[in-house]
Amino acid sequence: MNLYVPDEKGAIMIKVGVVGATGYAGEEVIKILSKHRQVKIAELSAIIDKEEPFSSIFPAFKGVVDLVCKKPNPEEMAKNVDLVFLGLPHRVSMEVAPAFLKAKKRVVDLSADYRLPPDTYKTWYGVEHKDKGNLPVAVYGLPELYREKIEKAQLIANPGCYPTGVILGIAPMLKEKAIDPASIIVDSKSGVTGAGRKADISLSFAELNENFKAYKVNAHQHKPEINKVLSDAAGAAINIIFVPHLVPMNRGILSTIYMKLSGAMDTKKLLALYKDFYKGKPFVRVADEDKFPQIRDVVMTNYCDIGVKVSGDTAIVVSCIDNLTKGAAGQAVQNMNIMCGFDEREALL
Amino acid sequence: MNLYVPDEKGAIMIKVGVVGATGYAGEEVIKILSKHRQVKIAELSAIIDKEEPFSSIFPAFKGVVDLVCKKPNPEEMAKNVDLVFLGLPHRVSMEVAPAFLKAKKRVVDLSADYRLPPDTYKTWYGVEHKDKGNLPVAVYGLPELYREKIEKAQLIANPGCYPTGVILGIAPMLKEKAIDPASIIVDSKSGVTGAGRKADISLSFAELNENFKAYKVNAHQHKPEINKVLSDAAGAAINIIFVPHLVPMNRGILSTIYMKLSGAMDTKKLLALYKDFYKGKPFVRVADEDKFPQIRDVVMTNYCDIGVKVSGDTAIVVSCIDNLTKGAAGQAVQNMNIMCGFDEREALL
Amino acid sequence: MNLYVPDEKGAIMIKVGVVGATGYAGEEVIKILSKHRQVKIAELSAIIDKEEPFSSIFPAFKGVVDLVCKKPNPEEMAKNVDLVFLGLPHRVSMEVAPAFLKAKKRVVDLSADYRLPPDTYKTWYGVEHKDKGNLPVAVYGLPELYREKIEKAQLIANPGCYPTGVILGIAPMLKEKAIDPASIIVDSKSGVTGAGRKADISLSFAELNENFKAYKVNAHQHKPEINKVLSDAAGAAINIIFVPHLVPMNRGILSTIYMKLSGAMDTKKLLALYKDFYKGKPFVRVADEDKFPQIRDVVMTNYCDIGVKVSGDTAIVVSCIDNLTKGAAGQAVQNMNIMCGFDEREALL
Amino acid sequence: MNLYVPDEKGAIMIKVGVVGATGYAGEEVIKILSKHRQVKIAELSAIIDKEEPFSSIFPAFKGVVDLVCKKPNPEEMAKNVDLVFLGLPHRVSMEVAPAFLKAKKRVVDLSADYRLPPDTYKTWYGVEHKDKGNLPVAVYGLPELYREKIEKAQLIANPGCYPTGVILGIAPMLKEKAIDPASIIVDSKSGVTGAGRKADISLSFAELNENFKAYKVNAHQHKPEINKVLSDAAGAAINIIFVPHLVPMNRGILSTIYMKLSGAMDTKKLLALYKDFYKGKPFVRVADEDKFPQIRDVVMTNYCDIGVKVSGDTAIVVSCIDNLTKGAAGQAVQNMNIMCGFDEREALL
Repeated sequence: MNLYVPDEKGAIMIKVGVVGATGYAGEEVIKILSKHRQVKIAELSAIIDKEEPFSSIFPAFKGVVDLVCKKPNPEEMAKNVDLVFLGLPHRVSMEVAPAFLKAKKRVVDLSADYRLPPDTYKTWYGVEHKDKGNLPVAVYGLPELYREKIEKAQLIANPGCYPTGVILGIAPMLKEKAIDPASIIVDSKSGVTGAGRKADISLSFAELNENFKAYKVNAHQHKPEINKVLSDAAGAAINIIFVPHLVPMNRGILSTIYMKLSGAMDTKKLLALYKDFYKGKPFVRVADEDKFPQIRDVVMTNYCDIGVKVSGDTAIVVSCIDNLTKGAAGQAVQNMNIMCGFDEREALL
Repeated sequence: MNLYVPDEKGAIMIKVGVVGATGYAGEEVIKILSKHRQVKIAELSAIIDKEEPFSSIFPAFKGVVDLVCKKPNPEEMAKNVDLVFLGLPHRVSMEVAPAFLKAKKRVVDLSADYRLPPDTYKTWYGVEHKDKGNLPVAVYGLPELYREKIEKAQLIANPGCYPTGVILGIAPMLKEKAIDPASIIVDSKSGVTGAGRKADISLSFAELNENFKAYKVNAHQHKPEINKVLSDAAGAAINIIFVPHLVPMNRGILSTIYMKLSGAMDTKKLLALYKDFYKGKPFVRVADEDKFPQIRDVVMTNYCDIGVKVSGDTAIVVSCIDNLTKGAAGQAVQNMNIMCGFDEREALL
Repeated sequence: MNLYVPDEKGAIMIKVGVVGATGYAGEEVIKILSKHRQVKIAELSAIIDKEEPFSSIFPAFKGVVDLVCKKPNPEEMAKNVDLVFLGLPHRVSMEVAPAFLKAKKRVVDLSADYRLPPDTYKTWYGVEHKDKGNLPVAVYGLPELYREKIEKAQLIANPGCYPTGVILGIAPMLKEKAIDPASIIVDSKSGVTGAGRKADISLSFAELNENFKAYKVNAHQHKPEINKVLSDAAGAAINIIFVPHLVPMNRGILSTIYMKLSGAMDTKKLLALYKDFYKGKPFVRVADEDKFPQIRDVVMTNYCDIGVKVSGDTAIVVSCIDNLTKGAAGQAVQNMNIMCGFDEREALL
Repeated sequence: MNLYVPDEKGAIMIKVGVVGATGYAGEEVIKILSKHRQVKIAELSAIIDKEEPFSSIFPAFKGVVDLVCKKPNPEEMAKNVDLVFLGLPHRVSMEVAPAFLKAKKRVVDLSADYRLPPDTYKTWYGVEHKDKGNLPVAVYGLPELYREKIEKAQLIANPGCYPTGVILGIAPMLKEKAIDPASIIVDSKSGVTGAGRKADISLSFAELNENFKAYKVNAHQHKPEINKVLSDAAGAAINIIFVPHLVPMNRGILSTIYMKLSGAMDTKKLLALYKDFYKGKPFVRVADEDKFPQIRDVVMTNYCDIGVKVSGDTAIVVSCIDNLTKGAAGQAVQNMNIMCGFDEREALL
């Protein structure tokens, strides 16, 4: 709950809606927005049996967000909001976004539906894209790379959780042409909320607790998303090796990245390269020499922490985010802040 | 795998089947039986899409139990086994057990279907009992209380997980008339495998991890089972207060039991009472004064550890088991050992 | 970080210090204060090898709290702060508080040093009290019971973690004389940060993970604290049964409380009694009928969630807090807010 | 406890001692030996305050191993055992082993003290080696590579936990010259018992739970051990990239290994290569195509499970063990079984 109203002069206050309020990402967007001083949460919807206060579904929100969560009706919701967050499953978002876009409302989509070209999308998500009209105007919402486009965007494709940490870990190297772009190996480890909230034995406590495993070995749907953005950054086709793993913890992604250096480099120089690249970016923190990030330092925050080291001809980069914050809801709010001219950090610090 | 065959003279070897092989209790029975030197696992069945080696379903069993797991066919299985374990959901066991009993085979049922009188069963499990014919001959398989009956039984109602630890914690007091039987309060805490293996959001990692809660407050279906056995022990109707809780760990139940003493008693006397009651019982260990049991000392074992203390007019008893071993599969094998004249401890130490 | 300065008219801004900044409670106070709009964190100290930025010790605070953490020097710190939080071990606080009190500064002490009369203190903490002069003016900082005294206090004895949840769960019954005061049984379960940050094998991951145990059975040092406050509320000596347990999770305490009703009562009436008692108290939420609280709904918040049920002549009350927030640092800030005339909820919602 | 004595004809029964009985590895050796039918646990020792039954120190062993644990006295113990396991810290083993070797007893050392040449040892463990006389006769106890030498060994250097899984994952490729030996990248993830049982804040529950981190990035002391064994296998100097990580679980190590193929290869051929290499090795299981191992399938077992995949010119190998079993105590017993002519699998299945 936000106790203080911003003073009158210049204060902007917008009305916001959340579609898919009961998923992990939707719930997290709502939690962050409840602390935002220039936002009024105006509408919530989800596929539910009966319409009831959001705080009846999630008792944690009692006294914090007691607004009724409605059944989905995009056209109706569009009348009552300035901006909407879509916390929907892949393949569903592209059926819902057009109603808001048509009504000239801003959309931050947390699914994968507006992140890939239609052919790549079809290959990895198994269906024909249903909103090819809006796809070209979508802006990939990674503020550290695309801030200027985000400022003017109407539709944001909010990045996937793995891509956020991985791209932030690699982009400086590509921009500086410091590595062999064919040599990138990414070994990622994620907490289990990354898989979303659903009834599935493979997500049950007893299957995941005291367990650790690789999955979708070099075949995860976030790989083409990473490849696309890195290829844009490098100006050449990039194809990484990408192996994700599941860690028995709720939140967080740590990626260990191995790259062959294209020329002589030591850790100090590498560190300078990263610190320089992220200068003035409030949500990326580069660790000092011999320090590496850990999940507990970024969990429940919008930070991406990065540590780097040179070993022989190999650069080792460790990048670390909270998958539900910087990897989803926090970055979505960061994008909204930029789109609306708010302080980029509002509700996120 | 069992490397040594027992020598010829007197060695009994029986053929055993497991119905419901893919549930937590069924899987655990199979794991224990794989180490048993007088048992041949002859048949496995479960509701599965296709018949395949058990070790293809659970890779942990590769090289250990590679027997094919079949679709259920009780009549056929009965031809090929001497004894069967039923690791089935409540309400299903009573439809399967009769086929084995009719074929004169022994049955150890791990469900609740043969534990309660028909009227109590209907009240708590919501359906009419379907095998009232066999119900009266079922023996409640708690060896520390009913060893002699178990030796001669054809059908064992293997106790529930909560009842096992709770009854072992209270029975000595009732037998010695050391407490007011109307004063029993049981506060139990269970690991999450107690709820079984099923697709359910409420059992997912992210809902249970870093969480703790009470559930079915004084309304859990194990309460009438506990009441029935304790009433038998006391020779009078007993109605406990019973609140179970869910702990973010895979296995184990710890119950803290509060009872009003009926007369003067100190901790030393109480300890003597418990040590005396469980003398010669290999699977109950009573802790010394000022020591209390913990889950990690019983996990993956068939032990029930008990600690006791007197505070004023209150006896505090802490009892501790592994819910899948002493609370289910281990006790089931212990019952089989007793029924078949094997060493009670075989495969359990 | 606090992005907006409060407007000029009437805005109060105070300078705050934290002694014991590197313990769990101290760290949590700092995290909460970093979001507080009427507080400037002016001084941090702890027993450390070298003075360095707080964010060098805890990288999570990089860019959030970069203030240097000094070695302890109460007299010096007192010159530079209006109010100080003491996040020190028991027995140490009473050596540090006097310097601040003498300098006329406000003190919120998170240790047990000012919570008990000197004789009880000696019995449970093993040493003679060293600041008997200030002990009588200390106010027990449980705002839901002692708000008026807190408003005027100079020295706050911030309640223990167990006592906070337990007292809030029982006080309404005593005030309404609804129970037999001799019948109270409290079964508490705590996450492991309750034991503080220290090098101790018994606190290591491998000892606690996948484990659950009772400890200090009816002999925990928080028992006399609970007894004292409840006795004050009842106007008669109260001596509860209190058994704490350790849950393999970081944060949270859930207490299940059993009390004998003194007269006829049903769940609806009981619920009304609790809702009435906590009306207007922003940080206590009473659950609706048949609902019970869980840790995940209060974790990282200052809420105490309560659920109640009548079973025969027994009232069952479940109370739930975050041990580091409402059970320590959050309540400490709530007390500061009340002492300073700020909104009680500032930085806590 | 072992219920059956082996029959007379041909049965060997040896007396065994464990030095360092209270560490994780020592405790695990004792647990395994308690099920071994050709071993009598004759002596236990550890650095302890007073000599008492092992089951008083670890209540889990009550009724299982009640032997008194003594203070260390290698010369005395050597008189009473045929073989000893040393579960000691690095740098201590080399002071204890000579007493047993001098007395012509067999030694299985679980520390790193006999695994490396003296100069490498000094570089990584910081001290001059103190038993250079016995160092050359030590056999590296990885049975899948060195079975014949182990059969005749008096002193076994039991492999480190990381090296066991990593070497088993890479050795087949080097033997078949299927990869560029300069291209090996190993990303390992370990449960926390790998760090041993000690009082250390960095090992405490609250620091590790809900956390994940890299540590000793390409600077872990197991790297030279891996390099040495792989260099022997390749017949050329090998220098891997090795980054270990800490997973919030008790047991298990999963290593994801990336290698550049030296020639054309597909997943089927790679799979055949591994299955062929490990044919007849009872404790290595190679998963079928598209399957990858997970910790829960090997935990509490002596198996190493391996899964492989080719992606372009890269081979991805996932190897998985229980760090305390195949990575320490289980492999130690496997070595003993081979040294003594027992079935390699005794007490391990």
